[in-house]
Formats: sequence, C-alpha cells, structure tokens
Amino acid sequence: MHSSAATTLAGPHTMESESIKLSPQTLIQAGDDEKSQRTITVNPAHMGKAFKVMNELRSKQLLCDVMIVAEDVEIEAHRVVLAACSPYFCAMFTGDMSESKAKKIEIKDVDGQTLSKLIDYIYTAEIEVTEENVQVLLPAASLLQLMDVRQNCCDFLQSQLHPTNCLGIRAFADVHTCTDLLQQANAYAEQHFPEVMLGEEFLSLSLDQVCSLISSDKLTVSSEEKVFEAVISWINYEKETRLEHMAKLMEHVRLPLLPRDYLVQLQCCPAGDGPGCAFTPSDRRGPRRGSVRTYASLT
Amino acid sequence: MHSSAATTLAGPHTMESESIKLSPQTLIQAGDDEKSQRTITVNPAHMGKAFKVMNELRSKQLLCDVMIVAEDVEIEAHRVVLAACSPYFCAMFTGDMSESKAKKIEIKDVDGQTLSKLIDYIYTAEIEVTEENVQVLLPAASLLQLMDVRQNCCDFLQSQLHPTNCLGIRAFADVHTCTDLLQQANAYAEQHFPEVMLGEEFLSLSLDQVCSLISSDKLTVSSEEKVFEAVISWINYEKETRLEHMAKLMEHVRLPLLPRDYLVQLQCCPAGDGPGCAFTPSDRRGPRRGSVRTYASLT
Repeated sequence: MHSSAATTLAGPHTMESESIKLSPQTLIQAGDDEKSQRTITVNPAHMGKAFKVMNELRSKQLLCDVMIVAEDVEIEAHRVVLAACSPYFCAMFTGDMSESKAKKIEIKDVDGQTLSKLIDYIYTAEIEVTEENVQVLLPAASLLQLMDVRQNCCDFLQSQLHPTNCLGIRAFADVHTCTDLLQQANAYAEQHFPEVMLGEEFLSLSLDQVCSLISSDKLTVSSEEKVFEAVISWINYEKETRLEHMAKLMEHVRLPLLPRDYLVQLQCCPAGDGPGCAFTPSDRRGPRRGSVRTYASLT
Repeated sequence: MHSSAATTLAGPHTMESESIKLSPQTLIQAGDDEKSQRTITVNPAHMGKAFKVMNELRSKQLLCDVMIVAEDVEIEAHRVVLAACSPYFCAMFTGDMSESKAKKIEIKDVDGQTLSKLIDYIYTAEIEVTEENVQVLLPAASLLQLMDVRQNCCDFLQSQLHPTNCLGIRAFADVHTCTDLLQQANAYAEQHFPEVMLGEEFLSLSLDQVCSLISSDKLTVSSEEKVFEAVISWINYEKETRLEHMAKLMEHVRLPLLPRDYLVQLQCCPAGDGPGCAFTPSDRRGPRRGSVRTYASLT
C-alpha cells in the first residue's frame, strides 16, 4: 500500500535556536529537590476538539474510506473512527473477513435512520433516546456493540417504568439480555401489582408468567384477595382456554390468608365454580416471606 | 476509490420486537407536561475510550494509511486522526498539494524524537514538557499547529522564569511570537532587575535592548544607582567596543535622582572618564512613572 513517494516539507522555524539556561539552580528554586522537574500535561479539550473536526471532515466527505449502508441510507465515514468506537466495526475492519477491505458495507437488521443516529453518536458522543426510537435503538446499539448507548436506552426505559408498561419492558429487557433493567422492571411490577394486574399487559401474560409473578414473596398487595382477584381477571380475559389452569394458579394464592366471608362469596365468582377450583385447606404458608409482599394498609 | 462490492451482514437481533406501550399517560407521569420527553445524553468517556483504541490500533499498525518521517524515525498513523488534531496535517491531507495522497511524508526541521512525542500527543492528549525538550518542542508544536502544546511549553517556561534566564526566555518568546510569555518575561526582568543585571544574559544584550530595559518606568530598583551600575557593568563587559555608547545609555539614567556624593565618586568609576560620559544636569525626570520602577526600600 505504501508508495515510496516521500514528500519533504520545510517548516517555518529552524531547530537552531538560542539556548535558554534553565539551570539546575533555577529548577531547584522552581520545584522541589526530590521531585522530578518533568511536567506531564493533559489537555482535556483535545479529544473533544478532534472529534468535532472528524465529524466536520465526515460531513464534507473528506478522508472518508468506507460507506456504511442500511436500507436506502448511505453514510460515508472513517474506518479508524468507527473501529475505535465500536468493537463490531473494529472486528470487521481489522479481521480477515471480506468486509475488512470492502468500501461499502451493508448492515442488515438496522433501519437507515437508526444507523445514521448511531454513526452520529460515534462522532459526537451524543444520543437522543426517545419513546419512539428506544425499541429499535437498543437492539441496533447492541449489534454495533455501542454499550454506552445500550445503557442509555436501558436507563431511559427504567425512567419510563409505569404499571401499564412494566411487564412489556420486562419482556423487552429479557429478550435483549438487559439484566439490570429486567430486575428493575420485575421489582417494579411486584411493587405495583394492584395497578399492574388491571392492565392489558398482565392479562396477556402466559400461564407460567402469571404463576411466576403471583408466587413471589415480594408482591406488594393490600391483602391476599388482590392476588386471587388477579387470577380471576386473568382467567376471565380468555375464559374458555384459561379456565383449566385455575387449579395450578390457585396453588400460588395463599388461601388461609383470605378472610372466611370472602371465601364464602367465592360461590358467586364467575370462575369459582369451575372444575379446577380445588381448595387446599391444608395450606399453611404465611404471609410472603421477604420484607415485601407486604400487605399494605389501605389509606 | 470506492468499489461497489457491498457486503451484507446480519445482526443477532431482528427489528421485529414486541412493542412496549410508552403511553402518553406514562410519559406525563415521568416528566413535565411542557417539556419534551426527549432525552439527549452525552457520554463523556466515549471520546477518551475511542482515542485509547485508536492509539492501540496505531501501535499495532492497524488501519494506518500514512507514514510520517523525521530524520530516521518513521511513524505509522491515521490521516483522519492527524488531520483532526493538527491544522497543518489537515491542510496537507485535504488540500491539493502532492502530499495529500502521499503515503510517506517527511517533516523537515523537526527531529525524530520530537515528532514522535507530538504524534503521541495527538493520540493521547498528554505531553511531557521538560527543560531538555521545551526549546525544540515549542517550535515543532508551532509548525504542526498544535496550539495546546505550544501553550503548555509557554506555561512551562513561565514557571521557570528566574533572574538568570528571564532575558533568554524573553528573546525565545520574541522569536517564536509567544506574546504573553514575552510580556511575562519582560515584566519579570523589570521586577528582578537588580539580580538580572548581574547575569550573563544582561551583559550579552545589545545596546538597544539595554536602552529599552533601563528606560522602563517599571524597573524595580532600590535606587537609581542600580541603573547606573548596570550601565557601567554592561560597558565594562566589552569595554573597547561599548564605551562609545556611554552617552546614549546615560540618557536613560535619571541623574538628578542619584545622590550628590555618589555623583562625585563617579570620577573613580572605570568607565566614567570616557569621552561619552556627558551629564545632563537639566534632566528633570522624576521617579519612573508607573506605580513600579519602585525604589524598593532595602531590607
């Protein structure tokens, strides 16, 4: 690659300059006898200024050596900058794959706008996470291994947790292996169970997911009746197919904690007379262990 | 340059992900009604991490596209990084000059070690300024237009100011157009004149430089005798050639401020009987104006 066409440039100053006496005497006065007289300086603005210029070069398509393509979006960029910020691009450009030399690289599974935002991020360190883009941004950032952006998306989703979306966010976190967000969303759902159980997301859970949630010791409810009501709501939402799961679900409702007169009323409950409704009077489980599945006093 | 060999890469995640309801209700709860729900995040560590990787790529000679040469030192680097940090390289690589395409660029007037340090700086934002390198580093940084390094060198020299070197530093600052350092070194020389006048640097000044210095209203001396003594010392240093300048120099000594008995003693002064020694008894100048050329009381 390297031609031998060497170019010689003369600078404005020659090296022959008058020598200043920075004598030992001077230096001892200026510093400490013991300490080295060397001064290592870090210029904190250097890298920010450099990235600003690199982004300007990119916008002018100067010194660009690769084109990244997604859908109909084509972005000129500098390999070394992409490689420095994204382990995905680094592996691509420095590995033995055919892409290491290709001038045009198409990225599948990322839409053009999202790719554009992520390459902007690489050059600016700035990312705008919105409710509209977070669900495509996080997987795309994961693909390009832009772990800071991935974390920004998780932080955004955590800040958006609400009884109406916490189970959806929990599922999303699970699919994309966002461990912390998964735990946060799960804890949120447990802590806000009385509101969560009213929502579409709860009613759309699978049998195993409902069992897992209502069996938690950390469920926060005013009384065990709430858990029972949640089971009934979930069954009634698709009664024909779900009624058969009644018995399995009831295993997780701590019946001895339900008031006697409430149990009597169960006869009137729409699902309560089904074949799977088997009481287990020998259930001796107490209030959910952990400090939570607190039976919060109603205000 | 761009081949059309497009490469298609499939990522680990598909874009078809379950949609989370980040409903308006949720968002109003999470933020403020008026404020946009957008969150622009800046990741401050991004650029530092990127430069670290770029420097690693450089040390492994990966993705390098230019070789910079000074003396027998050859340094592989990335054009876009050099261009982003140095307006000199930016002009070279993006201009119409032959160097814009050359794979090997020789830099004259910078020694190999200094070039190496400056390219290290470009990749790390760290520079070590020492008494040994400052005099070659500053001109080289000026050549490559690394203005932060140039400023670091000026700051280092300012911290080293001493009566034995302030006139040398002043001259150096003048040659390299370091305006602030020039002023600082000049003020230092004026404020420490009684010590400065004893040094080799003072005795080696030109006639005009001595005149300029001793005519300053800001000279700090215990009495005007010091100024007179400085003139005599300077003449005696190269008596044969300098004696003729006595008259011109004496114009800047404020004779009426010298004590009468001191003036009488002048007969004994080695240079005082020369032909140029013309008193100007009509001199009515007072103490140097400015608040300084303070006649400091001796302790």
